Amino acid sequence: MPYLTAASLAEQLTVTRRLTSEPFGVNLFVPGEPARQDDVARYAASLADTARHAGIELGDPVFEDDDWTAKLTLLLHEPVPVVSFTFGCPDAETVTRLQGVGSEVWVTVGSPQEATEATTAGADVLVAQGSEAGGHRGGSDDDASIGLLSLLQLLAARTHLPLVATGGIATGAAVAAVLAAGARAAALGTAFLCCPEAGTAPVHREAPHRSAPTAVTRAFTGRAARGIRNQFLDQHTAHAPAAYPEVHHLTAPLRQAGRARGEADLVNLWAGQSYPLVRDLPAADLVRRIDAETQAALQAALSAVNRSDSPAADQ
Amino acid sequence: MPYLTAASLAEQLTVTRRLTSEPFGVNLFVPGEPARQDDVARYAASLADTARHAGIELGDPVFEDDDWTAKLTLLLHEPVPVVSFTFGCPDAETVTRLQGVGSEVWVTVGSPQEATEATTAGADVLVAQGSEAGGHRGGSDDDASIGLLSLLQLLAARTHLPLVATGGIATGAAVAAVLAAGARAAALGTAFLCCPEAGTAPVHREAPHRSAPTAVTRAFTGRAARGIRNQFLDQHTAHAPAAYPEVHHLTAPLRQAGRARGEADLVNLWAGQSYPLVRDLPAADLVRRIDAETQAALQAALSAVNRSDSPAADQ
Repeated sequence: MPYLTAASLAEQLTVTRRLTSEPFGVNLFVPGEPARQDDVARYAASLADTARHAGIELGDPVFEDDDWTAKLTLLLHEPVPVVSFTFGCPDAETVTRLQGVGSEVWVTVGSPQEATEATTAGADVLVAQGSEAGGHRGGSDDDASIGLLSLLQLLAARTHLPLVATGGIATGAAVAAVLAAGARAAALGTAFLCCPEAGTAPVHREAPHRSAPTAVTRAFTGRAARGIRNQFLDQHTAHAPAAYPEVHHLTAPLRQAGRARGEADLVNLWAGQSYPLVRDLPAADLVRRIDAETQAALQAALSAVNRSDSPAADQ
Repeated sequence: MPYLTAASLAEQLTVTRRLTSEPFGVNLFVPGEPARQDDVARYAASLADTARHAGIELGDPVFEDDDWTAKLTLLLHEPVPVVSFTFGCPDAETVTRLQGVGSEVWVTVGSPQEATEATTAGADVLVAQGSEAGGHRGGSDDDASIGLLSLLQLLAARTHLPLVATGGIATGAAVAAVLAAGARAAALGTAFLCCPEAGTAPVHREAPHRSAPTAVTRAFTGRAARGIRNQFLDQHTAHAPAAYPEVHHLTAPLRQAGRARGEADLVNLWAGQSYPLVRDLPAADLVRRIDAETQAALQAALSAVNRSDSPAADQ
């Protein structure tokens, strides 16, 4: 029932360790609180027409914690180099225990307040997620969100923790930009959407050829997430409650049917705001290209600044 | 009645030419269409309590075009190096006439679609305004908006026109970032809010010491604009219509009273998302600091990338 069970995670760790000796990380969803059942029932009722039209029965909107305790136990017994958190901040005890077995703790934040919370909890690294990001928002589930470049400046002024920038980074020029803004690294998600290695459904893989803008919605999962606008998103965003993972389970059969049948209008087409720039290259080639673009972008910018500062340019 | 009359603009041009021989620009508001009077009347009614409580009579919600024709005539007779446009795209004839008297035409855009429109109209330069920006949004008045770093990548992939980046740029690190992302220049607004030279009201000058987040609202002017959240914004955003400049004139006496009395909760506290980083330095000092920060940020980023690519770093 969880998004990923602790048993599946254990298998994935075994496979990953067989494939590489490089450092890697595991990302955990910090559990929230059960939603009001009234809110969920009202939303389920509003989806009835869509479900009937698709010939699909809605899922059971249960609350669960994504195997939180079992996953933490696993990670304390089989430590990984990085444990990152999203959907909130783990408590200081959890952070300390993971650090005690040698893991670095990374916490996803979207505002200066969340950065302070993560710093107080003892995080080693802050993952600064800008409003451009595709998929779920990492921090608190409210409507405000800050553009990546503004967020990086605000966090750099407030903390000495290393920052990993994420949200809308599709090119080496943007990696160069976040490094110049003070980030230690960039994390890319949507950029890998169409790599042959990605587990992206065909209907989602075609999405970058659409021209629709993205929007933030709770319609698919009950948590704010950015996806490419489609019929489901446009029809149901306005009345979707904050109720994760209840709404996730409620809409799962619809989304699964949409993926199986190639009906993009039923599927959560998660994508960041730079999604039209996605490239369908093998992952390693994409990383190499982005690395080359990053260096070229920094060198070009530095040359331009030096040129405009030279006396000759003023004449 | 306009925000700035053509006669006042003419005076400002004379003064500016006396002060400097450096290139400068004039920014024009592209006029819209009158709003539905019903919408404006309904909004006026919803402001009645706030106005009564403040002891202020609301303004007359007239439509006008900010002296559009007279200003264009002035600028064709007394050309300036740059004429920039916001609130929409001028038609191709207007662009051609201004270029004919030697002016560069810059158009503010917030999306790839608006960039295409401006390019088709013949713009020389695109001002790429990210969602982080304070004050009015430059392009169309809809609710979608794109983070600056994502917007720069999307525009760079689509046009060879020079890009000027704006929105949430408060530090040289961010100037470095937008240059690395492919912008030719950066335009800063909120960063100058507290300079002694700025015509900022005292109540607005204190705003950076507040800790409230910003939000986008039509409550003050009838056009989407970002400001620091206060009581007026929180109470009236939900029901404010798209009706510029009618709502601007409607709320003008309230905002004027707020500024005069030091009541921040009545005032449009325009500010970009990086506003907590505003520095109260003289403008020239601020520019020099930002320039030094820009160079340092690019050099540091390039060194970091070169270091991480060297074989020694992998050992």
